[in-house]
Amino acid sequence: MSQTRTLILLRHGESDWNAKNLFTGWVDVALTEKGRSEAAAGGEQLVEAGLLPDVVHTSLLRRAITTAHLALDAADRHWIPVRRSWRLNERHYGALQGKDKKQTLEQYGEEQFMTWRRSFDVPPPPIEDGDQWSQAGDPRYADLGAEMPATECLADVIVRMLPYWESAIVPDLDAGHTVLVAAHGNSLRAIVKHLDGISDEDIAGLNIPTGMPLVYELDEDHRPVTPGGRYLDPEAAAAAAAAVANQGR
Amino acid sequence: MSQTRTLILLRHGESDWNAKNLFTGWVDVALTEKGRSEAAAGGEQLVEAGLLPDVVHTSLLRRAITTAHLALDAADRHWIPVRRSWRLNERHYGALQGKDKKQTLEQYGEEQFMTWRRSFDVPPPPIEDGDQWSQAGDPRYADLGAEMPATECLADVIVRMLPYWESAIVPDLDAGHTVLVAAHGNSLRAIVKHLDGISDEDIAGLNIPTGMPLVYELDEDHRPVTPGGRYLDPEAAAAAAAAVANQGR
Repeated sequence: MSQTRTLILLRHGESDWNAKNLFTGWVDVALTEKGRSEAAAGGEQLVEAGLLPDVVHTSLLRRAITTAHLALDAADRHWIPVRRSWRLNERHYGALQGKDKKQTLEQYGEEQFMTWRRSFDVPPPPIEDGDQWSQAGDPRYADLGAEMPATECLADVIVRMLPYWESAIVPDLDAGHTVLVAAHGNSLRAIVKHLDGISDEDIAGLNIPTGMPLVYELDEDHRPVTPGGRYLDPEAAAAAAAAVANQGR
Repeated sequence: MSQTRTLILLRHGESDWNAKNLFTGWVDVALTEKGRSEAAAGGEQLVEAGLLPDVVHTSLLRRAITTAHLALDAADRHWIPVRRSWRLNERHYGALQGKDKKQTLEQYGEEQFMTWRRSFDVPPPPIEDGDQWSQAGDPRYADLGAEMPATECLADVIVRMLPYWESAIVPDLDAGHTVLVAAHGNSLRAIVKHLDGISDEDIAGLNIPTGMPLVYELDEDHRPVTPGGRYLDPEAAAAAAAAVANQGR
């Protein structure tokens, strides 16, 4: 088959803890009203571009699940098949989950803070099982066994995301579906790094804005026809990505 | 295996067209704010009863899809697997879709009106493909071919629903899952008729209230342990069912 495959990446809109500037990770917070509007606006961008998903993949976190629901409802595609996996979850932020980003920056200093936020292979300290923001014992992760993380760096996210990419998303693409992935800053960075062959160093500088569909046309080897894909509203996406880069300042 | 299986039926809350007293059928209208509250309240009832779905089945209509989303979000079960099928859609109301129920009653009289609403095997006149409320050409039904209805009686709903019951819902029950079905007055009546062995005559008198989980424990042959199942709030359910019976008056 020589036709291209269409992949649409959508980062969830603003959550309660984005608004409060807290590290979230696997803590299952809701979208704010602004985040709900962002999701619906993302769906409207899809309609305007004539890009209608045939199947949607989400993480197991409600900010991504609700983003998918609202975007698809706005695009009149609420009825398409849904697949979910913990492998699309946000990076587990370890002991930083629930911590204020600004306080953490002040307490640990710029270098340590940026290492935790953007280092490719240095995870934050692990969270204790008894911590109020631990997901130990959460029934949605009961089957994970030894794969259940207590902290993750981006390299860890890539390792646990890729099996889902290969076993669930690629088959949907190969079936000719237009695939929407509604997920998180770091699980989407993991996908983009894989697709665009971004180096371990350069991925630190890549920020994906919220609520803005990022569209990749992929060839039969699942390589991007246009490296980096394209945002349906490039100017707004560039401005939003710059704002993400400055979080915690 | 001798353990019982748990099935939870949930009729969507009030939709825009319930509120306007129009025949809806396959027209894909949204929930009202009241309907959204009903859905969330249904989810809270599940939590109070300790009944947590492991998998959800919905129709392809947004009033059922949004009901499932809101009920599961309220129950902290938004992350469970989702399956959807047109076979769980509301009864297709044929040429009555989009018509005012009270006007239809006045125009055609009590006997014809009640025949269309409650006859087991007399469908309303078929809808024309060019009618503004026809679903001909809707991409979600592109694969139906000759099964695409232009009108349905309850007998027709049973015929198209049962293959999904057997091939999708029963396997989930047999796998030991607690199964939520978020659907519509008539697709749920079809399931209840099948489960409780209700006669073609008696089903006319059965009304399922909106937003109130109806719970069946089923034996290994998928027969109800308690005929009729149980509502988690029986008094509210009885009052609501009586109100449904009086629609259009």
